[in-house]
Amino acid sequence: MLDGKNIIGYDRTQRGSVTFRTINPVLNKENDTLFYEASEEEVEQAVSLAQKAARFYSETTHGDRAAFLKAIADEIMALGEDLIEIYCKESGLPEGRAKGERSRTVNQLKLCAELLDEGSFVEASIDTAMPDREPNPRVDLRKMMVPLGPVAVFGASNFPLAYSSAGGDTASALAAGCPVIVKGHPMHAGTGSMVSSAIISAAKKSGMPEGVFSHLNSKGHAVGEALVKHSQIKAVGFTGSHGGGRALFNMAAEREEPIPVFAEMGSVNPVVFLPEILKKEKEKWAKTLAGSVTLGSGQFCTNPGIMMGIKGSELEQFAEILTDEILNISPSSMLHPDIAGKYEEGKKMMHSQKGTAVVAEWKEKTEPNVGRQAILKVSASEFMENPKLHQEVFGPFSLLVECLNIEDLERSVALLEGQLTASIIGTSDELRGYDFLIGLLRDRVGRLIFNGVPTGVEVCASMHHGGPYPATTDSRFTAVGHDAIKRWLRPVCYQNCPDELLPVALQNANPLQLLRRVDGALTQSKI
Amino acid sequence: MLDGKNIIGYDRTQRGSVTFRTINPVLNKENDTLFYEASEEEVEQAVSLAQKAARFYSETTHGDRAAFLKAIADEIMALGEDLIEIYCKESGLPEGRAKGERSRTVNQLKLCAELLDEGSFVEASIDTAMPDREPNPRVDLRKMMVPLGPVAVFGASNFPLAYSSAGGDTASALAAGCPVIVKGHPMHAGTGSMVSSAIISAAKKSGMPEGVFSHLNSKGHAVGEALVKHSQIKAVGFTGSHGGGRALFNMAAEREEPIPVFAEMGSVNPVVFLPEILKKEKEKWAKTLAGSVTLGSGQFCTNPGIMMGIKGSELEQFAEILTDEILNISPSSMLHPDIAGKYEEGKKMMHSQKGTAVVAEWKEKTEPNVGRQAILKVSASEFMENPKLHQEVFGPFSLLVECLNIEDLERSVALLEGQLTASIIGTSDELRGYDFLIGLLRDRVGRLIFNGVPTGVEVCASMHHGGPYPATTDSRFTAVGHDAIKRWLRPVCYQNCPDELLPVALQNANPLQLLRRVDGALTQSKI
Repeated sequence: MLDGKNIIGYDRTQRGSVTFRTINPVLNKENDTLFYEASEEEVEQAVSLAQKAARFYSETTHGDRAAFLKAIADEIMALGEDLIEIYCKESGLPEGRAKGERSRTVNQLKLCAELLDEGSFVEASIDTAMPDREPNPRVDLRKMMVPLGPVAVFGASNFPLAYSSAGGDTASALAAGCPVIVKGHPMHAGTGSMVSSAIISAAKKSGMPEGVFSHLNSKGHAVGEALVKHSQIKAVGFTGSHGGGRALFNMAAEREEPIPVFAEMGSVNPVVFLPEILKKEKEKWAKTLAGSVTLGSGQFCTNPGIMMGIKGSELEQFAEILTDEILNISPSSMLHPDIAGKYEEGKKMMHSQKGTAVVAEWKEKTEPNVGRQAILKVSASEFMENPKLHQEVFGPFSLLVECLNIEDLERSVALLEGQLTASIIGTSDELRGYDFLIGLLRDRVGRLIFNGVPTGVEVCASMHHGGPYPATTDSRFTAVGHDAIKRWLRPVCYQNCPDELLPVALQNANPLQLLRRVDGALTQSKI
Repeated sequence: MLDGKNIIGYDRTQRGSVTFRTINPVLNKENDTLFYEASEEEVEQAVSLAQKAARFYSETTHGDRAAFLKAIADEIMALGEDLIEIYCKESGLPEGRAKGERSRTVNQLKLCAELLDEGSFVEASIDTAMPDREPNPRVDLRKMMVPLGPVAVFGASNFPLAYSSAGGDTASALAAGCPVIVKGHPMHAGTGSMVSSAIISAAKKSGMPEGVFSHLNSKGHAVGEALVKHSQIKAVGFTGSHGGGRALFNMAAEREEPIPVFAEMGSVNPVVFLPEILKKEKEKWAKTLAGSVTLGSGQFCTNPGIMMGIKGSELEQFAEILTDEILNISPSSMLHPDIAGKYEEGKKMMHSQKGTAVVAEWKEKTEPNVGRQAILKVSASEFMENPKLHQEVFGPFSLLVECLNIEDLERSVALLEGQLTASIIGTSDELRGYDFLIGLLRDRVGRLIFNGVPTGVEVCASMHHGGPYPATTDSRFTAVGHDAIKRWLRPVCYQNCPDELLPVALQNANPLQLLRRVDGALTQSKI
């Protein structure tokens, strides 16, 4: 089934001469399939097809796009065990995770289909004409969201399904009416390619225009760069490192026509312990944190990379229990030798920083590419002086920051950069006394968690998976949940447009039965 | 009343040595007041105060902020004739326009107060906990919009009131909960300063924190640059030239923490005539266009700078009537000698382009700084080859593009850059036959107008005053109407937050009586 080719519209091509293979990190050896890096010509062809498809695709009905997304979900499920097998071979992640992530991926597609059926994402707003208004009559104005145009999506290393070929970015962009070109992540090119084939099958069966989706293989930077700089690409979705995300953002900002880049670049997701809670629930929180830090070998953007508390016997006891708990968990394979290597470097960097000491560290030898968990600690004063201690170490690592008192803790929090999340752990009584701290945290995050850990991101309307820079390049948008679709839309206003020429969402008869804002009031009524 | 000082919080200062005066373009001489360019220190102080005010101000109630905005409106009206007088002295615009713009400014402030009272701009969304859900319980998630932080607003040259100190950007940013620092436009420093004093009076009377608003004088680039590059400034509003807007955008994108720049940079607002309408209504449209091109001496971002039609006797007759109509209108003063000078240069540039010819041009001598209207024409083939012909000439100028046939017209439209608006003028019957053309136009604009001219921008919920680059730097946001507030907000999600610690907008009891999305359904009910 895997041919290693690029998928350019309905074609499968291999025009370039650069090739690569994926790696099985558990076996520490290459997988079989040879993948062909997309050539300049192939990039150009994919964009040209997407651009041609854009007009037709932007005008498909919500129903047609919903059917397309559901067909993608069906085609992914129809890949069956083959998909699970290649997923595990390319990521080192266990079968359970593979199946869980497949469910999430399929559910995201179905959620986007539901959004289309419900339709309120078009934000239909109508102000009817007032021809007799004095001193000037009011014209008829009707506004709705329309798709931005072809979108480039960069597959994420740590979610071979849910943030790759048919992941959250693709599902929401296709729902919005934007053609998508995926630059597959090289670490799981096979998984990505297989899912992309499923999208193509679904597109054909659903009568979608050729070019509505393409998949490009790429291990280097050239393909991604060509996509982001291409004048016909109108937005970019990315999940990955700070360096990668910022580079794409810069390229997009330097274009003749700048375009939005939605880069989700990770976070240290600080978890702040208030004093009282540790007196009462240190076992519970030590166990919970040990699980959260090591979940998926720590390879989540919501991994709790920093913990903060008030120095003293309670925090010491917490650290002791945390040590027991975390060393009770068997370390597991990381996604790729490069990621495992970088993790080891990151730990080494943290060890070498002034004032850090080990709380818990897995020392025993393991198979290659296994991510051995570690908790280090440091004083708040060192933390405040040394920006390196604020950096993310991607993997099962966390840094415990010991503060002398609440003021010390507040000062440390005030120095934190933008984060996807922060957690505050306290008793109901004590939480009430920390308005100022809660405000400081809120100003730095996209999601503020009370008495919970950051891992586990619910896909729903009220989720915000984003946050101030450098967590993302645009704090105003989310990569998860219903509102992820907002990234690919812009408003257009129709003035005095004859009813039959309006998009159906704005027509008097309201054939889509949308909830619309009409002369200021939300209503599903006709006009 | 005018002291020429900077307004830094509740202080009035003059720390710098650079000074300037405004000019009365009608008299072609300087006005009296000497203005003190803000020094680096003053910029720093204004930002520092804004940053300190941000936390408190972001947590003021909707009611308090609405009262503040209404107080600003009252204080502006209380300035009485003094404001109208300085407005006219600094802009050359007539008293009627001054009063009309004052009304609009005051109405925008009141509209923002209404938005606060109504409250739905916070987009409250609640997904309640499902502790028994299998396989994993669902946590309680609540999301709402929160202010971005201190905003820098650049006063616009062509709207001394409605897009300056207390204009649409300031009103919407203050409503959102963001402190504002205005960099006043040097051409109407007195008008801006007087309105800013009114804002300060209102802030004091409303008990707002010092720093919620500051006003900096500036004729050069240094003050604006310092603001946009300052790490504590979190967003920028700008209305002006392409060069200015793009420069600010680039600075903001190059910051360590990039911030959004909402620059509205003008547009040629093409008006497309279909063949049948000119047979029937050429007098009406010639008269309408003559009025639209010369309105306010053409100094609107919605000025119709390009007209397109099918070459032939009907278009010729239209051009003849247009000539009569437009030469019947007395030309009027432009805003400033610099603007009048640039307008003359722009006309000269158009005259010198290959293939252009005069349709109508006011040749008689006038007072200095008067903008003499001109309509030139050119063939579509020349238009398609020469990007200079696509440029905006800021003033009472329009270029008539003569197309051989509809295909020629479509090709010309396909080459247009992003626009704030486009108009299509046709009979009801013929409009139905131009789906493709309408689609082409829609993809290039923020507002698509049927049988109307682009001037006249209604301030309402369904208005979109924006458009694809280079009309603006961010096609997803509007500078006019209810949704202008969205530019200054980002979502934050609260997970499992105790009810009493939630912002009131998200509390179970729904004390603000907001329409909220609760478990997927819009409701004003308590939880």
